[in-house]
Amino acid sequence: MAKDKKLVEEITSMSEDFARWYTDVVVKADLIAYSSVKGCMIIKPDGYAIWENIQHELDRRFKETGVQNVYMPMFIPESLLQVEKDHVEGFAPEVAWVTHGGLNELQERLCVRPTSETLFCDFYKDIIQSHRDLPKVYNQWCSVVRWEKETRPFLRSREFLWQEGHTAHATAEEAEERTVQMLNLYADFCEEVLAMPVVRGQKTDKEKFAGADATYTIEALMHDGKALQSGTSHNFGTNFSKPFGIQYTDKNNQLQYVYQTSWGMTTRLIGAIIMVHGDDSGLVLPPRIAPTQVMVIPIQQRKEGVLEKAAEVCQRLGKVARTKLDDSDKSPGWKFSEAEMRGIPVRVELGPKDIEAGKCVLVRRDTREKIECPLDALEETVVALLETIQKEMFERAKAHRDSHIYDAHNYEEFTEIANNKPGFIRAMWCGDEACENKIKEDLAVTSRCMPFNDQEQISGVCACCGKPAKKLVYWGKAY
Amino acid sequence: MAKDKKLVEEITSMSEDFARWYTDVVVKADLIAYSSVKGCMIIKPDGYAIWENIQHELDRRFKETGVQNVYMPMFIPESLLQVEKDHVEGFAPEVAWVTHGGLNELQERLCVRPTSETLFCDFYKDIIQSHRDLPKVYNQWCSVVRWEKETRPFLRSREFLWQEGHTAHATAEEAEERTVQMLNLYADFCEEVLAMPVVRGQKTDKEKFAGADATYTIEALMHDGKALQSGTSHNFGTNFSKPFGIQYTDKNNQLQYVYQTSWGMTTRLIGAIIMVHGDDSGLVLPPRIAPTQVMVIPIQQRKEGVLEKAAEVCQRLGKVARTKLDDSDKSPGWKFSEAEMRGIPVRVELGPKDIEAGKCVLVRRDTREKIECPLDALEETVVALLETIQKEMFERAKAHRDSHIYDAHNYEEFTEIANNKPGFIRAMWCGDEACENKIKEDLAVTSRCMPFNDQEQISGVCACCGKPAKKLVYWGKAY
Repeated sequence: MAKDKKLVEEITSMSEDFARWYTDVVVKADLIAYSSVKGCMIIKPDGYAIWENIQHELDRRFKETGVQNVYMPMFIPESLLQVEKDHVEGFAPEVAWVTHGGLNELQERLCVRPTSETLFCDFYKDIIQSHRDLPKVYNQWCSVVRWEKETRPFLRSREFLWQEGHTAHATAEEAEERTVQMLNLYADFCEEVLAMPVVRGQKTDKEKFAGADATYTIEALMHDGKALQSGTSHNFGTNFSKPFGIQYTDKNNQLQYVYQTSWGMTTRLIGAIIMVHGDDSGLVLPPRIAPTQVMVIPIQQRKEGVLEKAAEVCQRLGKVARTKLDDSDKSPGWKFSEAEMRGIPVRVELGPKDIEAGKCVLVRRDTREKIECPLDALEETVVALLETIQKEMFERAKAHRDSHIYDAHNYEEFTEIANNKPGFIRAMWCGDEACENKIKEDLAVTSRCMPFNDQEQISGVCACCGKPAKKLVYWGKAY
Repeated sequence: MAKDKKLVEEITSMSEDFARWYTDVVVKADLIAYSSVKGCMIIKPDGYAIWENIQHELDRRFKETGVQNVYMPMFIPESLLQVEKDHVEGFAPEVAWVTHGGLNELQERLCVRPTSETLFCDFYKDIIQSHRDLPKVYNQWCSVVRWEKETRPFLRSREFLWQEGHTAHATAEEAEERTVQMLNLYADFCEEVLAMPVVRGQKTDKEKFAGADATYTIEALMHDGKALQSGTSHNFGTNFSKPFGIQYTDKNNQLQYVYQTSWGMTTRLIGAIIMVHGDDSGLVLPPRIAPTQVMVIPIQQRKEGVLEKAAEVCQRLGKVARTKLDDSDKSPGWKFSEAEMRGIPVRVELGPKDIEAGKCVLVRRDTREKIECPLDALEETVVALLETIQKEMFERAKAHRDSHIYDAHNYEEFTEIANNKPGFIRAMWCGDEACENKIKEDLAVTSRCMPFNDQEQISGVCACCGKPAKKLVYWGKAY
């Protein structure tokens, strides 16, 4: 029992220190290990299995919309990175530079890709000639490098895994449609699979991507009331196609520039899952993304017939859910704690008395509710329970998020909320970057997005300067 | 018709210039594009889809044997690379070095991983303490960089995609068992999925991996009679665990070093598929790995009902095979050539007369055989045909391989074969590296492997020096 307690005691509680709770969970739940390369993490089997589930489901949804996967080089020649001015300014300060190949110094430095717009442009320039070659809707799954100073596992690391979609279209309308389509795909994925509600909207000019006309974003609220940018989709217009010279001949035999987009999601999503659903006992995984959905734990497993029955239960459930049996020689209490730490949605407890009574006990990770289940109704009960958990986890996260959105009508209210109430602040904005800068400097709050659904205007004037305002903005402290 | 011909005419014939035929096919079949980074290729959708199929099937087989996926950093600090002496000597001359992060020079250079033994060792040192922590059977899918001077798409490029498995075991026996298990898994995969026969065997000391006690390999024979090393599995014994200090406490509470293995397969396999099965009309893909297995091509598609019927056929076949419809406005002849170039195993030709007669024509890519098929027997006929093609492609490749294996009993025979008969040379070897070196210098032939199945000894003496010999070796010119 002392041993069981220890496992849990090693986690800092969320209320005591959220940041430490987070790093405790990523390590104790066996998702990552620190490596000897500063700022780069090792993603362990349990962490990587979550990423595989994310990849699998996102990739399936991508392909349904006509996306094709490709693979581009991981290096970008310095001259290529410099073709688009805003882009190089945004990324050059934070890239890793390769200067030597083998024993020789390179004639031109190569950066390890921080993102691949320039490579895709260089490629599209060669393969797009006619309107028949459009659209191109390519994506790649890879790792990218950004030489960050402060790093945190999953949230901000020098190397991370992601997908980056890059498309080229004949018209501005088609590019805009694809940009919004992918943002909505991301949002639906987060809500349906990760049980994580998001606000869909547009970034202000100050916060948009280096080189984009418009950046759309989904913003999620973490348990501590901070926002996390969880996916972005960019409309480049012709900002890249002009300097790169990506032109096609239209149906009237006229040369036209293509319109481009890019969009990406990263391993940062794993950090989001942890901070939206986790609790003081560790990880809480939504069933649809959990590598192990059900853990079968035998009680008094040395007693005759218990292990056999537990194996049978595991085998039956294995046909309808991702199920494992913990038949190690640890105590049941230790196994319970471990299954909780790892966020496994349902555990099945099964001892001699249960077997005699032809039942078992199902325990929900999210609510800790215990449910008696007749063994002959096992499969349907567990399948329905996993669906219920998925649905209720989303509803709880949404209720938490909604209860942490505060309206600010003027700067006094804005200040009061920013200083005392963690969450999203909804406030009108005049559109002037000076107000954005003031809010950031005074209150350490940034504009997260201008929501798509902005019919609702909470006042007629900017909450910062008092001038007329039409734009509603979600503000917040952010990771 | 002139246009149709052009597509085919652009390929050099195999017999004229095999190397040019190869590079023509990789480009014309739309598998790759050259990038502005010398020696790095862009893998296009058709090429990447083959890799996805390889990944999917290999990963499934890995997981059946208990492999877990992880992700390690792409950078290795210089000091870490240097811990194992043979390993650093093998790789240091061909790695890319990162010297700057952002605007600052790094205190220690980082190499972009050419392989990750050292990172896994550094990781295992931290997570392995007790015999309960063993075995560790981890794998990662990633890209690696080796600064090669001469490069060729898929076969040898500065960056390539691969999987690398790295395991740690309590005993030498268990490590040896895993090394051989993975080699056999690779061999079965090549034969069953890629329809590519391989010789399974062990590398000589001269040819083994930098740091390994033993390297096992599968060697395939390309159409031009050259060998291609297609997958390797290494037994490290304690060569890495000693310098890295990876120790565990055994059941008797004694400290022991772990025994390690590693094994990998790469995008080079795509080059192998091309060079084993391709012909003068382009790629020929084994059905199990083909991204598109069936292409439906309507004839006289402007005639009423033809496109509708073709779409219906495509939809029906889509339920049993990866099927596409080519309803573009190109001529049927052009579409035939294109489907052939891309190596699609079966094309379905369907015109007004066929529809009237309630049939269609199936054309095999591998043999060009045409088969009339009643439309009401479509699904079962196509499914059976794909199986037949898969089986016969393997048998043809095996017959070709077997007819290009030559026995050499002495140096005269060896020389005669090496100079005149492209293929594998089977010859006895005394075990002395001097003979290996002489053969390489004189004849540009290297030892490919000592086959597992070596009961058959073709003579009692070394074919080079005439001294007593027990080892049978497969020799060949290699990619």
